[in-house]
Formats: sequence, C-alpha cells, structure tokens
Amino acid sequence: MLCDRLRLRPTDPRQVFIVQENAMKVRVRYPETDRMGVAHHVNYLIWFELGRTELMREAGLTYREVEDRQGVMFPVIEIHAEYKASVGYDETIEIRSRVAEVSRVRLRFSYRIMNAAGGELLAEGYTVHASVGRDGRPRRMPTDLAASLRALTE
Amino acid sequence: MLCDRLRLRPTDPRQVFIVQENAMKVRVRYPETDRMGVAHHVNYLIWFELGRTELMREAGLTYREVEDRQGVMFPVIEIHAEYKASVGYDETIEIRSRVAEVSRVRLRFSYRIMNAAGGELLAEGYTVHASVGRDGRPRRMPTDLAASLRALTE
Amino acid sequence: MLCDRLRLRPTDPRQVFIVQENAMKVRVRYPETDRMGVAHHVNYLIWFELGRTELMREAGLTYREVEDRQGVMFPVIEIHAEYKASVGYDETIEIRSRVAEVSRVRLRFSYRIMNAAGGELLAEGYTVHASVGRDGRPRRMPTDLAASLRALTE
Amino acid sequence: MLCDRLRLRPTDPRQVFIVQENAMKVRVRYPETDRMGVAHHVNYLIWFELGRTELMREAGLTYREVEDRQGVMFPVIEIHAEYKASVGYDETIEIRSRVAEVSRVRLRFSYRIMNAAGGELLAEGYTVHASVGRDGRPRRMPTDLAASLRALTE
Repeated sequence: MLCDRLRLRPTDPRQVFIVQENAMKVRVRYPETDRMGVAHHVNYLIWFELGRTELMREAGLTYREVEDRQGVMFPVIEIHAEYKASVGYDETIEIRSRVAEVSRVRLRFSYRIMNAAGGELLAEGYTVHASVGRDGRPRRMPTDLAASLRALTE
Repeated sequence: MLCDRLRLRPTDPRQVFIVQENAMKVRVRYPETDRMGVAHHVNYLIWFELGRTELMREAGLTYREVEDRQGVMFPVIEIHAEYKASVGYDETIEIRSRVAEVSRVRLRFSYRIMNAAGGELLAEGYTVHASVGRDGRPRRMPTDLAASLRALTE
Repeated sequence: MLCDRLRLRPTDPRQVFIVQENAMKVRVRYPETDRMGVAHHVNYLIWFELGRTELMREAGLTYREVEDRQGVMFPVIEIHAEYKASVGYDETIEIRSRVAEVSRVRLRFSYRIMNAAGGELLAEGYTVHASVGRDGRPRRMPTDLAASLRALTE
Repeated sequence: MLCDRLRLRPTDPRQVFIVQENAMKVRVRYPETDRMGVAHHVNYLIWFELGRTELMREAGLTYREVEDRQGVMFPVIEIHAEYKASVGYDETIEIRSRVAEVSRVRLRFSYRIMNAAGGELLAEGYTVHASVGRDGRPRRMPTDLAASLRALTE
C-alpha cells in the first residue's frame, strides 16, 4: 500500500498541510477476477472502503480506533458506482478518495478508481454513512471527529 | 434456493403465466458477516446478482447459457443501494428482483432485500447493465432475448 | 438450500433417526468464479463451512445459538483440501459433511464436494476446530453439546 | 505492497542474488473480518496466493504472464493450513512464502503468516499446484520456467 499525499494546501498557520484527496495503489487479486476475465464489480466497492480508510488514516484518524475507542461506527447507508472500464488480474489500480460532505450524523465520501498504468478512469462513485453508536442507533459524531473530517472537505 | 413465483398474471392466452417478480431465499453465510456482527454491505450486491440470475432462470433464460451460447454478456455499468436495516449470521433473507427496463443495449433490474422472518425491508437498489459481446464491445441484444426480458416488465 | 437426510439409522428406541451425513446443494455464484472460468479454490472452504452448519442444524444444533447462547465458539485451527475437478458458474454442487471426531476440546469434520449433476467428486477435505470461550481461550465443550455431536459420528 | 528481499544468497557468479523467501506486508481489510471480530480463516488462503504471486514476481516470473503468454496454469490441487493466533481489522500481516518443491508437473509452496507488529506466527501452511495447459489437462512446465522456480528452492 503506497499512499501519496495529493494536492496539499495550507489551512491553518499552526498545522501546515491538510490532505485533500488520498491516492492509494493496490493490485487486483486473483480471486477478485471472475469468468469474464476481469475484476468482478463488487470489488470496486471494497476498494472504496480501502480508500476511505487510508484517507482517514492520512488525516490522523484510524477508523479502527474510532470504532474501538470512541464507540462510533459509520455503516454504509447508501452506495453508488458507475463503471467505465474493466481491469484485469495483477494490474495496479489507484483509488482516489475524498470527503464530500460532513454533518454531525452523516458522512459522504466520493471515489474515483483509475488504472495506475495509463491513468484511465475505471469507475467513480460515492458512499453515504450514518454515525451510529455501539447499539446501532444514531449517535452524533464527537465534535473533534466531525471537525477533523470537515477539514478534509473543500 | 427456494424460488417462489409471486404475483403471477395472465399475459397471453397461449402462455398462461409470466413471472413479474422473483423471490429467492438465502441464508447469511458466516464469512459474509464482519466485525460489526452483521452482513457486510457488499454482500447485498452479490445477493442482487443471485436475484437477477434466478429471475432470468424463472423466465427460461439461463444467464450462463446467454453468455456461453449467445455470446452476449451483461456487465454492470451502474449500481445503487440504500440500506435500511442490518441482518445477522444465519438469518434468512428474501431477494425480490424485477426487470425495470429493457432496451436493445441496456437492461435495468431493481431489487428489494427483505428479512424473511419478519418481512422487514433491509435494502433496496438497482443495477444497470450494458449488452456487450465476447470482445467487451457494445452489442445489440438478440431480438428474442430482448423480447423475453421485456415480457417481464410491466 | 435443499438438505436431505442421508443414510438414516435408528439409534435409540425413543429417538428414531440420527443424521449421519448431511448433503446440501448450492449453486456456484458468479463472483465465486475466477479468470480460469471455474470456481476459485477458496470457495470450497466456504462450502465446507456451509456444510457443517447444515449438519449441525439437522442435528438440532444451530451454530449461531451455540455461539450466542452457550458462549462457545469453534474456530478453525486446521484445514485441508484436495481438489480433483473444477466446477463452473451456475452448476450445482452437493456438500457432504460428517462429524469425524469429537472430544471436549476439539472437533473434526470431514467433507466431500460433489458435482450434483453427475455425482463426480470435486474435492474432499477436513477441518479441525478448537472449543473456545468468548475470550478466545480454550473452553471445554458443554457435556450435552459434546454428546449431541458425538451421536453424529459412527 | 511492500516486498523485501530476505536472506539473499549468491548462487551463480553471473547472477549475483536469488530470492529465497519473499516477505510481503498487507493490512487486514474490513470485509475480511467476521462476527468473531477477527479475520475469517479463508482469507489466510487468499494471503497465501498473494505471497506466492509476489515471490514469483521477485524471481522475475509474473504469474499473469505465465498464464497469458506461456499458456501454463498452476491450479491448486492441495491446500493445508494450521492456525495459531487470530488477527484483527487493520492490523498488518507479513506473508512469508517460499518454493518448497518443483517438478515438471508439480509445484509446492510453503507459507508463514506473521503479525508484522510483534512477529507472532499466526498461521502456516502449504499449497500444491499441478501444471496444466489452457485446456485444463496436465502439461509439463517449460524447462526454463521449471529452472527459474527450482532456483528458488534450497
């Protein structure tokens, strides 16, 4: 997993740079392919999940710790993807993720999956997440968590 | 796999019933669950795929044969899902699938995932498919295939 | 999921039949295939898991309840499979499972995966499970649970 | 994916170093976990596959090219794993792979999965592969391919 900081910008004099978009590279795994010979469409949604996890990590938020220490979970409540081109076994894709919207109860990420070799757009989409507690009921996001996520939007 | 014909209706005097919506039951598998204790969201999209396969089979169209004999494939070009409630390991879900739209080059299915026990709506969504040939290029659907699929819409 | 009782035998005058081997049929799902055009080898191990779950259910033991109510879990500590033939998308396989060995701390299941159409043996293997508590530490199986499982061996 | 060359040794005066064991690091993905809260056991077998692919790549053999250009495939005919400890979401594992045995018709790899943080052994196992052609029938491995693989054994 190679994560590069893209398009950094100064946001605060004390905290010089903030990640805007996270780019993460992964190779297509053999069992991710199907009998058409290319990656099955559900894997793109797993790649979305890898992307948002790395985006949060770059921003200093480890999603596992958010779940385990803060007791807040962000289950997917809406998912959308549009597929433009296929990608084969062992090819490297680049997952570009960004936070599109943050409120105290919802979170929206948007994604683009590119072929790392030629830069071709393979798919794009978004996910919407609710903020819930350990009991699965809606729970307002802690203020500092919401602020950290909001700092990632433009 | 238990498939029930739902809401049958007479359509043609010579061909008495046509399936409108297919309902298929499956149990949630252990590896489909995640650390939240419920089925991971990507599995719903695999259930959508099971649903449309059974819907086509009920209509006399085996998707494998469509791919293998007619050389036509229907890759997903757009997918959308909205999640309403979670479902746990070993619970039985009912996948309700219908053909929403058919043209010579596109196909749209819509789905509802219910908890088979209480009938609660767990998720709903749709998939859009292109009609392509073995080379991955757009190919108009054979007329009889398009007609069989169109007969499933209202 | 179609489960048939195979080779039933009388064991106790008050409880007429005991399941010896469980046979369960499932179809190969599209994302289970890979670019070789057949089911990827890891899926056979998921089928093993489906098989032992149904075997236990037939014997009146719902694995989910064993985990949730009795607080005993049976994680896999050893797995072995030998592959004889491949199987394609949408073909129906039959998973034949049996309890091979039971002690208060271990459990062994053995499996055969057949092609339901011709009866050809596709793979065979076994899994060994430890009995552990919710904390992941070894925990002796409750006596009645061990007895019910032992009744399934020959 | 970070691949480090481990235990390098000189083998031939003209070709200075040969990889003996490949070590590759990956993070546990969210959908790889199950309701026990740790990675489901089948994922270890997918990690074995990632490991042997990287091992071959380090040795200059891209498995995809072997399949696509040479028309030789190495389907798994036997798999074995023993599990020692569990691993949770987002933890980093190290997959250590080596070629254990090579003949013109068979190939055996062995693996150890470690927790990258503490170095704890999580699982070990092996896979045996047949050499087959595009038609799925046994096919002797090309001499140079067998030689390259044999150079990786001790």
